[in-house]
Amino acid sequence: MKTETTIHGLAASLHPARSARKLIGFVPTMGNLHEGHLNLVREAKNLCDIVVVSIFVNPTQFGPNEDFDNYPRTLEQDSHLLADVGCDIIFAPTVEQLYPKPQVKTKVLVSGVTDMLCGHSRPGHFDGVALIVTKLLNIVQPSYAFFGQKDFQQVVVVKQLVHDLNMPLEIIAVPTTRSADGLALSSRNGYLTAEQRQIAPTIYQSLLAAETQLHDGIALADVLETLKHTLCHAGFEIDYVSAYTPDLEHLTQFDQDVVLFVAAKLGETRLIDNLKVKFIAT
Amino acid sequence: MKTETTIHGLAASLHPARSARKLIGFVPTMGNLHEGHLNLVREAKNLCDIVVVSIFVNPTQFGPNEDFDNYPRTLEQDSHLLADVGCDIIFAPTVEQLYPKPQVKTKVLVSGVTDMLCGHSRPGHFDGVALIVTKLLNIVQPSYAFFGQKDFQQVVVVKQLVHDLNMPLEIIAVPTTRSADGLALSSRNGYLTAEQRQIAPTIYQSLLAAETQLHDGIALADVLETLKHTLCHAGFEIDYVSAYTPDLEHLTQFDQDVVLFVAAKLGETRLIDNLKVKFIAT
Repeated sequence: MKTETTIHGLAASLHPARSARKLIGFVPTMGNLHEGHLNLVREAKNLCDIVVVSIFVNPTQFGPNEDFDNYPRTLEQDSHLLADVGCDIIFAPTVEQLYPKPQVKTKVLVSGVTDMLCGHSRPGHFDGVALIVTKLLNIVQPSYAFFGQKDFQQVVVVKQLVHDLNMPLEIIAVPTTRSADGLALSSRNGYLTAEQRQIAPTIYQSLLAAETQLHDGIALADVLETLKHTLCHAGFEIDYVSAYTPDLEHLTQFDQDVVLFVAAKLGETRLIDNLKVKFIAT
Repeated sequence: MKTETTIHGLAASLHPARSARKLIGFVPTMGNLHEGHLNLVREAKNLCDIVVVSIFVNPTQFGPNEDFDNYPRTLEQDSHLLADVGCDIIFAPTVEQLYPKPQVKTKVLVSGVTDMLCGHSRPGHFDGVALIVTKLLNIVQPSYAFFGQKDFQQVVVVKQLVHDLNMPLEIIAVPTTRSADGLALSSRNGYLTAEQRQIAPTIYQSLLAAETQLHDGIALADVLETLKHTLCHAGFEIDYVSAYTPDLEHLTQFDQDVVLFVAAKLGETRLIDNLKVKFIAT
């Protein structure tokens, strides 16, 4: 496994694979890796000849009051984990490599699918995501890029921009990896106190309960109300509890597949999760 | 020479060249080709193994009161011209191929270098250019793409976005092709009446006169005033007469290389031209 810190170095490392027309798989991450990330890499290894994992805490997707400065940087530990799952190349550039002076003047903006949910709660977040993903995809030029479904809206945004800009690759969405108690794995789980960590699985448990209620015929609006109430009662400060179609279109009734979305804070830590509920015509 | 009208067809046509890792050159055009375009193709043939020319009148770069509907479409004539200069593949997609329904939701916006000149006169023009160029570059995936320096600002915008988005190719700017009387070749010259066509070369002639004045030590502001006056007097309605550095930075004195820019209308026809004037330290 090689580690490259410059665009030029990565290009040189990938040159033999590209010349041999090998399938390149790409997993973009912000590091501080957990089993969720490693499952993305395993999926990439299954489908591709060469797997590149980027580790880059992207400043442009953090808001001014968010955790960019404190976001955990654990490159040495990440390297060991990636070596164990067969990653071929780590791309760990500096901020200056990707945002050189004097200034990046180009923005990639995806409208529609960025208006709601985290796009609404974190203004500018998906502009930063769209820019860095476009840059990284152009640098790595993979055939497949792998994203976790925990960040459901991010997957929709990235698929939209890849489609709209005719980027020559396919985005693969990989199911969320969870702890035994259901908590979606996230680097931000590391911020939780022991007590908060006990409460955190309530998100997924209440999403499962909501699924059952929908299948039992309870109205969508009522199900969302119950979900909110359960989370408030457990000690969460709710950012949003919402339902959209898998394409992030609005919907008011459970008359097609629906995705339930939760973003909620425990203390200072913001957690997100989602669950796709299949519509079964009766 | 092949003509492809779909993204899929173009990919199939390019597959053998791509597999053989041949150098692909790309010349994006809006058709109605003249010697200026053909010189871009010749330049591409010099540098590359395979040359793709796109012919697409891009709706998103025209303003609501501009000439999108009337822009000349002359595919058959263009095909003959391209065959003669050795073009390998024409890509002539429909609007639906590049802007499929329901909607392209992604924008590529380049700031700074789009604020002035045509960016100011034609709001949204460079947003449309940036989007279509990004799409076409991703579809063709060339090693080199060729643009005419007549559209100087367009070249700066395209180079900026290719740099900022880390697109894996090089932009080649090709000098403006001119008639014997100096008029920069442009599809829009075809709109001119015989009388207007006699007046049109005044743009380039007055740019050359301005160059001489600058080298004679006349102040930049005075040179620009004279240029405006000459054009008004010849019957032009001036859109802008301005000077910037080659990177489109502001400047007030001729103390470095300067590019003089003109956009002016004869009747309904808007013509643009520019001249780079070398600074020679004395």
